Amino acid sequence: MKNIVNIGGGTGRYTVLSGLKNIPNISLTALVTMADDGGSTGVLMDELGVLPPGDVRQCLVALSEHSDVVRKLMNYRFENGGLGGHNFGNIFLAALEKVTGDFAKGVEIASEILKVKGKVIPITKDRAKLSVSFLNGKSAEGENRIDHMNLQKSGVDNIFYKDKVKLNENAKRAILKADYIILGPGDYFTSIIPNLIVNGFKEAFKKSKAKIILPINLTNKKGHTTHWKVSDYVKFMEKYLEKPVDFILVNTEMPSKEQIKKYKIKEGDDVLVEDDFKDSRVIRGSLLSHASIVSNKADKLADTRSFIRHDSEKLAECINKIIS
Amino acid sequence: MKNIVNIGGGTGRYTVLSGLKNIPNISLTALVTMADDGGSTGVLMDELGVLPPGDVRQCLVALSEHSDVVRKLMNYRFENGGLGGHNFGNIFLAALEKVTGDFAKGVEIASEILKVKGKVIPITKDRAKLSVSFLNGKSAEGENRIDHMNLQKSGVDNIFYKDKVKLNENAKRAILKADYIILGPGDYFTSIIPNLIVNGFKEAFKKSKAKIILPINLTNKKGHTTHWKVSDYVKFMEKYLEKPVDFILVNTEMPSKEQIKKYKIKEGDDVLVEDDFKDSRVIRGSLLSHASIVSNKADKLADTRSFIRHDSEKLAECINKIIS
Repeated sequence: MKNIVNIGGGTGRYTVLSGLKNIPNISLTALVTMADDGGSTGVLMDELGVLPPGDVRQCLVALSEHSDVVRKLMNYRFENGGLGGHNFGNIFLAALEKVTGDFAKGVEIASEILKVKGKVIPITKDRAKLSVSFLNGKSAEGENRIDHMNLQKSGVDNIFYKDKVKLNENAKRAILKADYIILGPGDYFTSIIPNLIVNGFKEAFKKSKAKIILPINLTNKKGHTTHWKVSDYVKFMEKYLEKPVDFILVNTEMPSKEQIKKYKIKEGDDVLVEDDFKDSRVIRGSLLSHASIVSNKADKLADTRSFIRHDSEKLAECINKIIS
Repeated sequence: MKNIVNIGGGTGRYTVLSGLKNIPNISLTALVTMADDGGSTGVLMDELGVLPPGDVRQCLVALSEHSDVVRKLMNYRFENGGLGGHNFGNIFLAALEKVTGDFAKGVEIASEILKVKGKVIPITKDRAKLSVSFLNGKSAEGENRIDHMNLQKSGVDNIFYKDKVKLNENAKRAILKADYIILGPGDYFTSIIPNLIVNGFKEAFKKSKAKIILPINLTNKKGHTTHWKVSDYVKFMEKYLEKPVDFILVNTEMPSKEQIKKYKIKEGDDVLVEDDFKDSRVIRGSLLSHASIVSNKADKLADTRSFIRHDSEKLAECINKIIS
């Protein structure tokens, strides 16, 4: 039984977890940042004083072995009235936090109800307000706000939490026990780094004997990683980790012209991450999804956030070759 | 395996189902009126166009064999923001109706998730607007409104649905297959009758060979059944059913003076139902609960609606003697 930990976010994370779920004889743990403060999640945090449920919900759905209808239910978004805009799953997690008095405990119960394969663990039990300071002396607060800023224009000096945010003991245990830690796919500044800067993470990570797998994102994010090449992702991550990564997964298949065109509208030029890294740690392969995106009101994630994406089975297969 | 059907409402129903749940070798079905339109339920119906989830939620919680925390979750009431005033369980059922497109199907899935022993079946799949006409020619609409009216003052001419409301096929099957039908406990005009007046109910009921068990309510409801004695309840029900009942369960134990005093404030004099009925069908016994009501914010039902109530085990034991 190999212990696998994933740190990531968004569609990329959903994809990698959905694929890994089907690999036998692994114990899978998804670590989830508590920095999210946008949309339904932000409203629930403000109104109810709960920790952010959105990312946890996505992980639970990815790892749930319950029926399709229950997984749909978790992503169902109310359209009208006082509940309008909220995903049912977010409300579910907020209510569980209220009833148990402990977000992490609530996530455990949700995992049981949803027949989740593996564990979903909040990286911290503290409220975590993400902040960024720029080279020009200015700064900004809030994950959702930072997500939509052009960080490259001002130049990032530091990403940090305003208040002290402590590593959850269960997250620490998972890192120390891990045989492999998969970093990504996901947004670097708002999904991956918010995990790495939690107090105690770096120490646990250094102690861990886990091999590090880095699936390189398929596309650059405008104003965050515009113009980045594979080598930039690797260097950036290694600088943050103060440790070399062991495996670098790079997709070799070109998306369709139509997909690239769609993407350019939102993300600008240099959408695709150029493969410039000549290194024996790189594992190349066709990792691209050919599934047509079904428009699904209930699953906004699949619908709008990504059209060029990893194929969950191909990615899982590639990872399985490394770990077995 | 005996097939038992219960028709009732509120705390009384919660009590009888909680007790019957523990009897082995019975197949239990709770039929639920769709006339409720008050509180959180009413808001969800108006804003989301769903069928009323409140009564179903109570039955599901009573029959759930899941952990205490999951049962607490279902009754948890949000206090703030856009979700304020809503029970989580109501939101859960509303979302399931939206995802499946069918309230009854949603209830089935909820039953599976909550490990419900038995079945909870909506009496109809139609929207059911309860109406009452009075002897003075006036009328009123809406279950919640009728619940709070003094019906005795004006004199009820008829209770009916404004639009045609058809018996759910699954409810019909349960009635036809039943060995015993338990009518009550519960409010007569707003919980029990709204089931009996659904189109097709009376025909199914007449065809059914089920023996009818009538647990007489412990207390009279102000303006609805003030001054009623056991014989009044029996006569009223038999007139509605056009069929004699087979077993009449009457409590013989007096509540404490303190309980009666508390009750009189809300319900006026003649709170207790006088036992005036000399008939061989009457089964008398101590059916009163001695459990102290724990104040529980999450479970408003237990907290405020009833202080004089049946003991679920005693009531179930009494019913078990009849059916075994």
